[in-house]
Amino acid sequence: MPAPGSVGQVATLAARLFTAQSPLRLASGAVLGPVDVAYETYGTLSAGKDNAVFICHALTGDAHAAGFHEGAKRPGWWDNLIGPGKPLDTDRFFVISANLLGGCQGTTGPSSTNPDTGRAYGLDFPLLDMADFVTVHRALLAHLGIERLLAALGGSLGGMQVLEWGLRHPEQVTNAAIVAASSRLTAQNIAFSAVARRAIMDDPDFHDGRYAEVGVVPRLGLRTARMMAHITYLSEDAFSEKFGRTPHPERDKPGFGIDFAVESYLDHQGRVFLERFDALSYLYLSRVMDYFDPFSRPDALHGVAASPVKFLVLSFDTDWRFSTDHSRRIVKHLQNAAQPVTFREIPSSWGHDSFLLPVARYHDTLRGWFGRALREGLR
Amino acid sequence: MPAPGSVGQVATLAARLFTAQSPLRLASGAVLGPVDVAYETYGTLSAGKDNAVFICHALTGDAHAAGFHEGAKRPGWWDNLIGPGKPLDTDRFFVISANLLGGCQGTTGPSSTNPDTGRAYGLDFPLLDMADFVTVHRALLAHLGIERLLAALGGSLGGMQVLEWGLRHPEQVTNAAIVAASSRLTAQNIAFSAVARRAIMDDPDFHDGRYAEVGVVPRLGLRTARMMAHITYLSEDAFSEKFGRTPHPERDKPGFGIDFAVESYLDHQGRVFLERFDALSYLYLSRVMDYFDPFSRPDALHGVAASPVKFLVLSFDTDWRFSTDHSRRIVKHLQNAAQPVTFREIPSSWGHDSFLLPVARYHDTLRGWFGRALREGLR
Repeated sequence: MPAPGSVGQVATLAARLFTAQSPLRLASGAVLGPVDVAYETYGTLSAGKDNAVFICHALTGDAHAAGFHEGAKRPGWWDNLIGPGKPLDTDRFFVISANLLGGCQGTTGPSSTNPDTGRAYGLDFPLLDMADFVTVHRALLAHLGIERLLAALGGSLGGMQVLEWGLRHPEQVTNAAIVAASSRLTAQNIAFSAVARRAIMDDPDFHDGRYAEVGVVPRLGLRTARMMAHITYLSEDAFSEKFGRTPHPERDKPGFGIDFAVESYLDHQGRVFLERFDALSYLYLSRVMDYFDPFSRPDALHGVAASPVKFLVLSFDTDWRFSTDHSRRIVKHLQNAAQPVTFREIPSSWGHDSFLLPVARYHDTLRGWFGRALREGLR
Repeated sequence: MPAPGSVGQVATLAARLFTAQSPLRLASGAVLGPVDVAYETYGTLSAGKDNAVFICHALTGDAHAAGFHEGAKRPGWWDNLIGPGKPLDTDRFFVISANLLGGCQGTTGPSSTNPDTGRAYGLDFPLLDMADFVTVHRALLAHLGIERLLAALGGSLGGMQVLEWGLRHPEQVTNAAIVAASSRLTAQNIAFSAVARRAIMDDPDFHDGRYAEVGVVPRLGLRTARMMAHITYLSEDAFSEKFGRTPHPERDKPGFGIDFAVESYLDHQGRVFLERFDALSYLYLSRVMDYFDPFSRPDALHGVAASPVKFLVLSFDTDWRFSTDHSRRIVKHLQNAAQPVTFREIPSSWGHDSFLLPVARYHDTLRGWFGRALREGLR
């Protein structure tokens, strides 16, 4: 019997949304098929199909956002948010969470088999665009027989998908919550991802992206990439509070290994990441973020001007990966187009990672926002 | 004929300061010999030997701080500061700059030959302490026949050496200028260095530190380390101002190469670094910074309490590698011991790298401080 507040045991489902004969047409013009999507749902779709909320995950997330897989000890990555009585209340909402295109947890990505060759795509996989994630999310919605979303919600890269969805297909998204995201990465943002990709591609086991055929994985490069990224996910104060200068308890004598607790943390984060993530997906998904710049499109706001979306934009005051400036820029663009947008900067000591954590002010804000959305219903 | 303000052509000199028979005794108790030191001097030592200023360099610096080596097009790394009429005026001061112990530009370090084996030390080189840098600097001073310094000056790791020198041997340092430095790295500071070291040691060409014997260099790991470090040397605004989201002019089509100008910059910084720096030195010198925590010593301030040093502590407002908080901590410790300390936070948009740049307020501050030091003379 599941714990109170848990959606209980769940399983990831799969759907073939595009085939070789009826492929996905990407923003670049390239076609891709078949495309399979891994997804989960929590709660019950109302008879009127008017309570659907779509969750968009961040760079390294997956479809398993809530509840427990059979035999698993750890719940999904957003379990603190999603469940009966939780801010995203599965007694009231029907929640859909899908692994995104280019990912590596069930949805077609660069390490999937290329039907033309019988081998993994590798770097032959087409370059993706934020719009392509949304196209596939929309195909999943259609597959589920749902026309419109009461809300879309995502953090970081997830928030960027929500923004793209709201701008491109405003008639489909009544409410759009964009958390700790950006509409335009800075040079520093790009720089961090560039070094991460460099570390991955420099790994001799990368083999120009054909590592699967060789039977290896560019583990060292992927680990370095993840360790570096984790530095940017926490605030400097959070690092100090969590680890300070505490020595690693298993250190025998000073050297170049794991001498400090913070080094043990990074080492652990790097190692566990290897068990669940794919190096090619890291390249493809991070590059989409670099290029994302929706408000540079001259017609970016035409859609919402005709069919307004109720936007919620949240930032965290200690997030230096996507600081509040990024959120303010989004808000400014939307306000310039007279969109209904609510903005909150949430105090939280944890930095970018806050969007995954049960920060009270943050969860309260989302709870209130979802409640309002339900009362007001679909547009 | 040298340009006005230049010290002109210079050459790096070498001195054997310790021998196998009379080795250097390290803070750890280990002994090391021979120890050679590479150094340069600019200006003229006064008859009273009372105008000597010692320059301590940062993590990847070297002895060549000013002027031009024969045939070189680029001057030393602090040439904007040191020269006739410059803030550190070589018409008035005798300036000494030495490559530090553990380095790779002429001073004995982990890639020097171990006389016991006839091969490079590699990881058999002893772990170093900030005090060891100072011990070798002091030996060089003695070699030059100089008893006391009018001033010591350094930025970043260089500032840490100056702090250590002032605390341990206050009678030898009348004035001590500590720029953009720290007395105690944060967990985030350590984290960045830890990932850099991980990248170096993970490189298959590292060969457990014996890469010289194999005839290779862990180029890829060292490049990744340097690229990542460079992100932390500039402020986010400086990155935006310098590069923004400008595409790299030679980009042909989007991919995972050098698509953005900022990626070209990092790539360049990584590549040129390989020509001048050694991977083992990176490990050894960065680790000294991690462990440096002088004010944790119960007797840290006993020396300066008896023999005060005139400290100048400078930070830059956009430096997020060693933010002003680090400098304030140093100031607070010194003030608690009633030391004469001047503190300035200099406005500069460039972040940590500002200490190497001709920031007007910064150079004016140093010019005034050196002038005052000269007028007041040795203690």
